[in-house]
Amino acid sequence: MMRQSVPSMQDIEQAHQRISGQIHLTPVQTSSSINKICDVELYFKCENFQKTGSFKFRGAYNAVQQLSDEEAGHGVGTHSSGNHAAALALAANLKGTEAHIVMPDNSNPVKKRAVEHYGASITYCGPGLDAREETYRNVEKQTGAKFIHPSGDFQVICGQGTAAKELLEEIPNLDAIITPVGGGGLTSGSAIAAKAMKKDIRVYAGEPQMADDAYRSFKQGFLIPVDRPNTIADGLLTSLSPLTFRIITEYLDDVFTTSEATIVKAMRLIWERMKIVAEPSAAVALAAVLENRFVFKSKKVGVIISGGNVDLNNLPFRSQDES
Amino acid sequence: MMRQSVPSMQDIEQAHQRISGQIHLTPVQTSSSINKICDVELYFKCENFQKTGSFKFRGAYNAVQQLSDEEAGHGVGTHSSGNHAAALALAANLKGTEAHIVMPDNSNPVKKRAVEHYGASITYCGPGLDAREETYRNVEKQTGAKFIHPSGDFQVICGQGTAAKELLEEIPNLDAIITPVGGGGLTSGSAIAAKAMKKDIRVYAGEPQMADDAYRSFKQGFLIPVDRPNTIADGLLTSLSPLTFRIITEYLDDVFTTSEATIVKAMRLIWERMKIVAEPSAAVALAAVLENRFVFKSKKVGVIISGGNVDLNNLPFRSQDES
Repeated sequence: MMRQSVPSMQDIEQAHQRISGQIHLTPVQTSSSINKICDVELYFKCENFQKTGSFKFRGAYNAVQQLSDEEAGHGVGTHSSGNHAAALALAANLKGTEAHIVMPDNSNPVKKRAVEHYGASITYCGPGLDAREETYRNVEKQTGAKFIHPSGDFQVICGQGTAAKELLEEIPNLDAIITPVGGGGLTSGSAIAAKAMKKDIRVYAGEPQMADDAYRSFKQGFLIPVDRPNTIADGLLTSLSPLTFRIITEYLDDVFTTSEATIVKAMRLIWERMKIVAEPSAAVALAAVLENRFVFKSKKVGVIISGGNVDLNNLPFRSQDES
Repeated sequence: MMRQSVPSMQDIEQAHQRISGQIHLTPVQTSSSINKICDVELYFKCENFQKTGSFKFRGAYNAVQQLSDEEAGHGVGTHSSGNHAAALALAANLKGTEAHIVMPDNSNPVKKRAVEHYGASITYCGPGLDAREETYRNVEKQTGAKFIHPSGDFQVICGQGTAAKELLEEIPNLDAIITPVGGGGLTSGSAIAAKAMKKDIRVYAGEPQMADDAYRSFKQGFLIPVDRPNTIADGLLTSLSPLTFRIITEYLDDVFTTSEATIVKAMRLIWERMKIVAEPSAAVALAAVLENRFVFKSKKVGVIISGGNVDLNNLPFRSQDES
């Protein structure tokens, strides 16, 4: 297998030019009460307000726009538990081609409906990466769709990096940026962009303990796929890809794992104090700040709120987790 | 009793100058998917992002800032189910005086905690306006606090009018503005400001059927207090005051009542599509648009999202109310 090349800042800049007419320039919000609780100055980049409700549209749109008409002629396809699927469905729609999506049948129902809403053709599969990949191979064989990997795709990573680029353009003097990490596309793109724009910035990732493959891979220095992940952060059930593992090893300063209880606590803080809807995966970055206050104390920290697609019929809030 | 005078646009402008250094200039947001559902162009003024989580801070801060040191010397006081109480508590805090709050003991627990958080002294009472007023009279006797009525106060109305003023400054060509109506302070201030800024604009209010005193008072032409209100919109359980009734009779174009089911549906739309947290009372204006589409069809309509203080442990979403 050919070793994939790593995106440069120039690649991210080109991606940004390509997609900026179509994406939302999402706002950066602050909360004095969360700052007080954490003893840190947080700048939340609100990708929950992005098209399709997550940052994933940046990468998917960038990747699909890069395809020639011939490459896109048989549609595009992917396997995804939700946000990348919805993003790819809209990106395909805008390109005038079809999206073929393989989704685990236990996916968040709101995410299923979103993918349907954008007109994609969906094939459901069992849980786990093996089932996804096998089902996808069948779909690919039948359709000839062009595969767009949810996180390990060069152009996807370039697109995801544009969120951190916008954040640093708006708040240039950040000491650190933290993102949630699942497949690592957002983390990789953010790290490349941030380190190019500000040499001494720290870039961190937050990950659920219950799906800690990035943490273990980063610490041990080789790619360890996730084993039976089980977290409320349904967007982070996947593993790093070879490309994102390489980038994270090279660019990232650290990975912090967080408990499920802290993820829910962080999500509640975002909802109650900022009055915005963030999905559990999006709260993982703030959860990591809450559990590692000594690292972030009195620093200016950019936090990427990755998405806002939650199932309102099945929220995790219980009276015992109140702050 | 002396007939109270009605605020003019100049009074609202002065209020705006007085408070603008302290309030948030809240964003105006749009949602293409809600526009599509309603066949209307909606501009949401997001007062859920206002300090204390609702527009109420505008009026309370304006009223408290107007007091002389002597008038404020024994503190300020009010009876309120929540948002005005929290707003007055912060306003008193900023003025360096005490807030004495009478709250029904069945108030939303999040609102109770907010009032405590801002350092107010709270006295709980039974439900209903009579219990509130009687309990408040005792508190007033003991403390000598200056009473700041939640909606029927001249300076409170001036402060509330500044939200519609900001909205029209940002989107000058609105055909209509709609607000939720409870005690009528927001509706009155919005109507005065909007009609002064744009002669032919329509100003409407949305009200829960289950607390329809403004609707009945407006239609019948005399003040009919609410009788055993019972709505999920806990900020709208109160009745118009003599002053807000007069203003509404003179300035408002119509009042629309909405069902509880539509209030929850509207709240879900705001959360799911806009990714922002709006409380049930805040969703009543959109609910009125949903139930009266012929009135708003293809119009540019400003909608005031009045607040975002919800009890996350007790949300109304059920799978059967999905859109």
